[in-house]
Amino acid sequence: MSSNTHQTAPTQFVEAAGIRFAYRRFGKKGSPPLLFFMHFTGTMDHWDPALTDGFARDREVILFNNAGISSSSGEVPTSIEEMAQLAAAFIDALGVKKLDALGFSMGGFIAQQFTIDRPDLVRKLILVGTGPRSGDGMASLTHEAQEIFGAKYDPADELWLRVFFTPSKQSQAAGRKYLERQRARQKNRDPLANEKVAPAQVAAIQKWGAPAKDPYAYLKKITQPTIVVNGNNDVIVYTVNSFILQQNLPNAQLILYPDSNHGAQYQYPELFVEHVTQFLQG
Amino acid sequence: MSSNTHQTAPTQFVEAAGIRFAYRRFGKKGSPPLLFFMHFTGTMDHWDPALTDGFARDREVILFNNAGISSSSGEVPTSIEEMAQLAAAFIDALGVKKLDALGFSMGGFIAQQFTIDRPDLVRKLILVGTGPRSGDGMASLTHEAQEIFGAKYDPADELWLRVFFTPSKQSQAAGRKYLERQRARQKNRDPLANEKVAPAQVAAIQKWGAPAKDPYAYLKKITQPTIVVNGNNDVIVYTVNSFILQQNLPNAQLILYPDSNHGAQYQYPELFVEHVTQFLQG
Repeated sequence: MSSNTHQTAPTQFVEAAGIRFAYRRFGKKGSPPLLFFMHFTGTMDHWDPALTDGFARDREVILFNNAGISSSSGEVPTSIEEMAQLAAAFIDALGVKKLDALGFSMGGFIAQQFTIDRPDLVRKLILVGTGPRSGDGMASLTHEAQEIFGAKYDPADELWLRVFFTPSKQSQAAGRKYLERQRARQKNRDPLANEKVAPAQVAAIQKWGAPAKDPYAYLKKITQPTIVVNGNNDVIVYTVNSFILQQNLPNAQLILYPDSNHGAQYQYPELFVEHVTQFLQG
Repeated sequence: MSSNTHQTAPTQFVEAAGIRFAYRRFGKKGSPPLLFFMHFTGTMDHWDPALTDGFARDREVILFNNAGISSSSGEVPTSIEEMAQLAAAFIDALGVKKLDALGFSMGGFIAQQFTIDRPDLVRKLILVGTGPRSGDGMASLTHEAQEIFGAKYDPADELWLRVFFTPSKQSQAAGRKYLERQRARQKNRDPLANEKVAPAQVAAIQKWGAPAKDPYAYLKKITQPTIVVNGNNDVIVYTVNSFILQQNLPNAQLILYPDSNHGAQYQYPELFVEHVTQFLQG
């Protein structure tokens, strides 16, 4: 199976916590695998092959759909805590004892909670386009996010050109390349998330982002080496939240890229893979 | 001369604007040289050989003392603008037509001004442990800086353990390694800056940091690709100023390192050289 890629890796299934979890696992065996935590409404097919195959050159990568999403059974829970518990049940069912975790956006919330719940499992943490509990503009979807997710697109996946990229010519051109890469898998593609996914995830996101007293104190529990990455102008989870994460995590590096929005890692995929590979090897 | 290193490069001299500028130039010829702008009270010998020799593997590096400092003649001006003009006169006298600029702390202020004055000269810009005009806590030395620069040290250069590094065991250990590297050059070492340097530089720093209306608008003039680097807890030029720089520069990447103060690039010299080399080659 080690010769599989993002395009060819079969969707496999494992049972845990009453859920039949869909996952794909490929790449070079040897070091701890890199587990990817997906964003709002995304499936395994929303990951960028430039990233997954880029990392798979040096390590195993594991993609999965959490409960209720796409090819996984069950219901989407309405809290980040339950999502993290389900992810841990999935990883335990795979028998993985040590991993690196990469969480993007809502996936970054889950990856933080997963790391706090199961510090034994997580060696290093990668937080992309995400933020802390009670972060700036995180009590609900930002007004930009409401407008962007509320609009119609034809084809529908051009939504991501606005969620992940800036209006600049360079960023939009990079966005179209990302869409091409993301559409390339034809066989055994994941079904899109059903209509019950978004409302449950929004409820979970709003609880995570709700104002709280001394909201960033919990970050002191994440002692793993962490890298925080974002665009300079993220309108979905405001960029300042990446700065807040780095300032409050005990051991975190921050990288912000120029002229980029929520999906900076898809705009600069080679640079992102290089930076994160340095971090994982360092 | 191309086989020279930080330790062996002779101090050379060139006349410009009535000043006899001391400089050292070494490294691999071919691409634009990398010009280093020094911090408060520093001489060429305060640069870390791990950085200068690290960069010199791929490109020429140029170190210099600006007017009135150490082995250069003249008086230290009391404004960043005059310092930038003198640096440009020095570069013109060398006949360099294109370069990359690296400015550290006060050197970062000069490098910004130099880039605005002479956009033709600068290909890419590296701003380390520095901040914008009128930045946060920049109207005078920070209270931490006043305490640290005001204390006595034996040997005297242990001052830099507190200016550049955090109190953590790891950071202090990295600091002692930096001091060893920095002390290694024995022959033709630069004389320390005389007693007139610090007051003039403080005056220049205070003018740069003074409150102003719409203070960050000037950063839009710096269209060169820029990388901003700092520690997560810089007490000399507060870290938030690096974030402000990145948010206001048209084309800037930001990297903040963990558990580090004003001299993060000396704490993680290999990683810094790697990150900046990627940036210069990208």
